[in-house]
Amino acid sequence: MTDGRFIVFDGGEGCGKSTQISLLRERLEASGRDVLLVRDPGTTRVGELIRDILLNPDHTEMGFRCEMLLYMSARAQMWHEVIGPALSRGAIVLSDRFVSSTLSYQLGGDGLTEAEIRTAARIALGGGWPDLTLILDMPVERSIARVKRAKDRIEQRSSEYHQRVRQNFLNQARTTPDAYRVIDADRTIEQVHQDIWRHVEPLLEMSEAKA
Amino acid sequence: MTDGRFIVFDGGEGCGKSTQISLLRERLEASGRDVLLVRDPGTTRVGELIRDILLNPDHTEMGFRCEMLLYMSARAQMWHEVIGPALSRGAIVLSDRFVSSTLSYQLGGDGLTEAEIRTAARIALGGGWPDLTLILDMPVERSIARVKRAKDRIEQRSSEYHQRVRQNFLNQARTTPDAYRVIDADRTIEQVHQDIWRHVEPLLEMSEAKA
Repeated sequence: MTDGRFIVFDGGEGCGKSTQISLLRERLEASGRDVLLVRDPGTTRVGELIRDILLNPDHTEMGFRCEMLLYMSARAQMWHEVIGPALSRGAIVLSDRFVSSTLSYQLGGDGLTEAEIRTAARIALGGGWPDLTLILDMPVERSIARVKRAKDRIEQRSSEYHQRVRQNFLNQARTTPDAYRVIDADRTIEQVHQDIWRHVEPLLEMSEAKA
Repeated sequence: MTDGRFIVFDGGEGCGKSTQISLLRERLEASGRDVLLVRDPGTTRVGELIRDILLNPDHTEMGFRCEMLLYMSARAQMWHEVIGPALSRGAIVLSDRFVSSTLSYQLGGDGLTEAEIRTAARIALGGGWPDLTLILDMPVERSIARVKRAKDRIEQRSSEYHQRVRQNFLNQARTTPDAYRVIDADRTIEQVHQDIWRHVEPLLEMSEAKA
């Protein structure tokens, strides 16, 4: 029996997730591996409809508990329909964001605790969980500057918010070090990629030794 | 300080919930009370969008965990936006279905346990909960016959399914008797209404005594 690996890329806006996911995908595919990319929330038909509700800027009345549970609904469907089956056939699944984002962005909203978010995620995934979460970390001023070049719509006053989100990512890695790796993303694309590979490679060897 | 009351009407298809909710509303309003009707899932703008995803018959691929969490998302928003504020101003909120429906219809799907559904509901409602859930109960053959007259689309083969749903409703009432009342709904509309009133009236007096 083969079993796959589920690797999550997460971090603040402008941290370079997409670029690094593409590079890792290419390297894994070049070595003949079955690789699947997913985006969170979304990927499935139902998940994309949930994504539309979540990302509609008109929905300013949405409470944090509704928002958190909508993210978890989309993940439940993605696990049921895509990630679970892919892992069963031995694929390597790379996700752009996952539960770690909710633990950074929604934490504290309407009194939401870390335990509530983790519990909701466990119910959504019915026993599934990422094998590894890579946090692409860099100083907030640097990542905001990157996003500004690209989109020019990040507000000055949100710097404190981004600081808190960054700390939430780092706290997750600190409290559950086995499941997380913090990657210094404020380096060249190639340096960051090599660092990611250094953390991913042992996980693949474990998977193959088990197969 | 006044505080309201949150009363849920639940039960299988064709049990007469809508008729009884209307009658109770009229009686409460005639006595000068502030009454609000909600439907689950739905009521809010975001909740109605979630309802559209849930009730779209094309979504046959939807897993039970996604489905359950979507119901809870809609409830979280309904509590945040409508029920919570109404209770704070002292209103009596009557809901057509609620968590009790999920505990009857989704229980066991994809391995969903009662504890998981209750935990998800507690997270959704952030401390809120119905004051009373009225289960309108009748033999499945009788309620199916009622729905058949109205809609003519209930399948014969689903009788076993409806039996299980009925048992799930009755089990909830048996295990948490303080929060539930089982109403024999296989009687005249007026008899059922008088029985409901008998259970609702003490709750209103408690509320007024507290006010």
